[in-house]
Amino acid sequence: MKAVVTIMLKNGVLDPQGKAIGHALNNLGFPQVGEVRAGKIIELELTETDRAMAQAAVEDMANKLLANTVIESFKVEIVG
Amino acid sequence: MKAVVTIMLKNGVLDPQGKAIGHALNNLGFPQVGEVRAGKIIELELTETDRAMAQAAVEDMANKLLANTVIESFKVEIVG
Repeated sequence: MKAVVTIMLKNGVLDPQGKAIGHALNNLGFPQVGEVRAGKIIELELTETDRAMAQAAVEDMANKLLANTVIESFKVEIVG
Repeated sequence: MKAVVTIMLKNGVLDPQGKAIGHALNNLGFPQVGEVRAGKIIELELTETDRAMAQAAVEDMANKLLANTVIESFKVEIVG
């Protein structure tokens, strides 16, 4: 069973990496680019076979280690 | 119009960040975690209104700046 955790900075938290990417794209000839946000994606292979158990375990992992919940929000998807 | 670019290391490319996350999770009491891969996600706000044009432009951005296509693969999604 495979899980995908997507971690983004919360709205309102300054994202200097995203800003830098946005400016670089504008300067590279892409004036249509406005706000840019950068985040992380983590793919996990699990030996767990129960979908609900896997979802709960990965949410626990995200809260404990993968995301900094003070400034980041996360989304867990079980992709089969 | 919003685009999401997902960038992952290609299969076969060593991913030390993923390995470190995997080991940390195992040590933290999640023995069900096997292989872990870490990647990046970039959300772009575009002034472009045509879906196909937006897709083409963002693929161009990914090839030129966002991804290192020697070691990384990317996926572009236009999310409305």
